Amino acid sequence: MVVDISIEDAAFKNYAVCTAILVMKVLLMAPLTSRIRLTRKIFSSPEDTKFFGNNADNKTEDQDIERIRRAHLNDLENIPAFIFIGGLYLLSSPETAVATWLMRVYTGSRILHTLVYAVYPIPQPARAISWGIGFGITFYMAGKVAFHFI
Amino acid sequence: MVVDISIEDAAFKNYAVCTAILVMKVLLMAPLTSRIRLTRKIFSSPEDTKFFGNNADNKTEDQDIERIRRAHLNDLENIPAFIFIGGLYLLSSPETAVATWLMRVYTGSRILHTLVYAVYPIPQPARAISWGIGFGITFYMAGKVAFHFI
Amino acid sequence: MVVDISIEDAAFKNYAVCTAILVMKVLLMAPLTSRIRLTRKIFSSPEDTKFFGNNADNKTEDQDIERIRRAHLNDLENIPAFIFIGGLYLLSSPETAVATWLMRVYTGSRILHTLVYAVYPIPQPARAISWGIGFGITFYMAGKVAFHFI
Repeated sequence: MVVDISIEDAAFKNYAVCTAILVMKVLLMAPLTSRIRLTRKIFSSPEDTKFFGNNADNKTEDQDIERIRRAHLNDLENIPAFIFIGGLYLLSSPETAVATWLMRVYTGSRILHTLVYAVYPIPQPARAISWGIGFGITFYMAGKVAFHFI
Repeated sequence: MVVDISIEDAAFKNYAVCTAILVMKVLLMAPLTSRIRLTRKIFSSPEDTKFFGNNADNKTEDQDIERIRRAHLNDLENIPAFIFIGGLYLLSSPETAVATWLMRVYTGSRILHTLVYAVYPIPQPARAISWGIGFGITFYMAGKVAFHFI
Repeated sequence: MVVDISIEDAAFKNYAVCTAILVMKVLLMAPLTSRIRLTRKIFSSPEDTKFFGNNADNKTEDQDIERIRRAHLNDLENIPAFIFIGGLYLLSSPETAVATWLMRVYTGSRILHTLVYAVYPIPQPARAISWGIGFGITFYMAGKVAFHFI
């Protein structure tokens, strides 16, 4: 592939590290959910209830679990889009400093989104802002990629 | 990486532009949802109700919002799979014209899917056909990649 | 891109084939769902009921459909993360044999996960183990990528 970046480039290395952090962050949503499911014994599949035991009220839903699931789904709606477009954006000749900082801010905004949504729920517009920063960065990168390669 | 394509190749450029369009399309599902949530004041998290106000009936669900969410989830089930396999498909020595048109038709079929599912719901089999075109293209590409690299 | 792998490398070829298999596996969740929806005539959108007919009880939910949907969602939570990090992991100078086998075991664990969750539900901890193997491999690869490129 004749491209103008190398895996030794600072922008590429930064992209790889941000992707690794984001992937680990998304993966950690599962044990975050399981911990509550297991302590409250609230499951969605009967074989789980059979194996781990049941709660006193036969509940299959819980407000805190639903909140983490919404945060997790929001990750799936946003993070793969960013990782795809981030890789192509590196090939669209961005300034190294701009690319590096956009990706770092994105990664920080998604960690913040999880914290304010699923870990320590705090009032709006905290969640809207942390989501909006990530949305804006991904949309900007997608626009740059489209204009560069069209 | 010793590969037989360059970012100057027409097929790669077309892939980058299709990916950017698809990413922007998926991202736009969020404001499409929010617009209805905000005008009808129907939210799934209590902090949203506190910040943006509540509807008269304390409703937390709405048929139109659920429809957009299903379209959005269908995107997540299909579009990342296409972007992953599309990149590898470019490395499997496809004909440029075939690769280019498969990706354009795919991108069009997903935009159509959103239109007939979430924007102007129209009778089946409109949605089944638009989904099926994308499914067929992705499956074909995955088969080509598997046979090429096995 | 100045990288130390070629698309002729055994590890890259194996990655491409595993990705193709995983993509096809995820795609097949849709017809798996549709087959039950169509035979039991249980749909979530009114235009589907109009086109394909309705069940006797006006049901819109079904335990088996929900089970397949949970398995499908679990795929979306895990498989894109693996494909992203697997590609970067190849660039982090892993041993060919280690990279090859981690990816094969991952692919097998996800097929197993679908079988025990959605096709022939069998008691826990079968699902927890098949999920955990994939989780561990992805997390290990993400850690290796982060340490390599930091």
